[in-house]
Amino acid sequence: MASAQDVVTTFIQTLERKDIDAAVMLLSSDVSYENMPMQPIVGRAAVRVALGSFLNAATRVEWVVSRTVAADNAVVNERVDRFEINGKWLELPVAGVFEVNGDGLITLWRDYFDLGSYTQQMADVMGQGSAADG
Amino acid sequence: MASAQDVVTTFIQTLERKDIDAAVMLLSSDVSYENMPMQPIVGRAAVRVALGSFLNAATRVEWVVSRTVAADNAVVNERVDRFEINGKWLELPVAGVFEVNGDGLITLWRDYFDLGSYTQQMADVMGQGSAADG
Repeated sequence: MASAQDVVTTFIQTLERKDIDAAVMLLSSDVSYENMPMQPIVGRAAVRVALGSFLNAATRVEWVVSRTVAADNAVVNERVDRFEINGKWLELPVAGVFEVNGDGLITLWRDYFDLGSYTQQMADVMGQGSAADG
Repeated sequence: MASAQDVVTTFIQTLERKDIDAAVMLLSSDVSYENMPMQPIVGRAAVRVALGSFLNAATRVEWVVSRTVAADNAVVNERVDRFEINGKWLELPVAGVFEVNGDGLITLWRDYFDLGSYTQQMADVMGQGSAADG
């Protein structure tokens, strides 16, 4: 069976190619997806909606993993999640925590990041960041 | 020699008792302390100043570690950093990444967290969060 680390690596690859069907197949039915500044998103169907909303906004997705540390069923990584939107790149440093069950499915996905860094850049790429008068 | 994980555990204990002298002894001279939404703080002397500013504002400090994963010289943890200020507790979820060198000194301390969660709570505990008119 694939190691927990292999499952997380494959999961990230599905996100990079915006293959939401394949991504969701790697999640347990009761998965908890926790962006720490926000409420947890629980269950495969809800996570599918969330993935769609942020993946489909981007023309390209690259998650650059700089470190992975794994122990038993847990995987922790440091990443820069990059999204190309309107021809500009949004880049978000993230520390991610994953737990993988005995069926090789992700049961927990918890990301630590600065929400303000995300929202500011999103406003910039959407062209709402620097409106000039006159 | 103490493992990297032991060094990080001891370091957190020094912070909880606000023993800045002992904390700084566990840092290499060229340590980099990186709160991800902000600029890195480099060098023992600069980190001492930073530690003083956030530890001395608190009457009590508790860092509750919920997970630690270690590999070689790296330690990653999930924590809730709690600070009692003006009789109220500020609580910040954090993912921390540490690297420890061959002398048992921390060379990298990188924390991922939501800066807005911190600044909002700080305003609340300082009594600036809910001013009423009239």
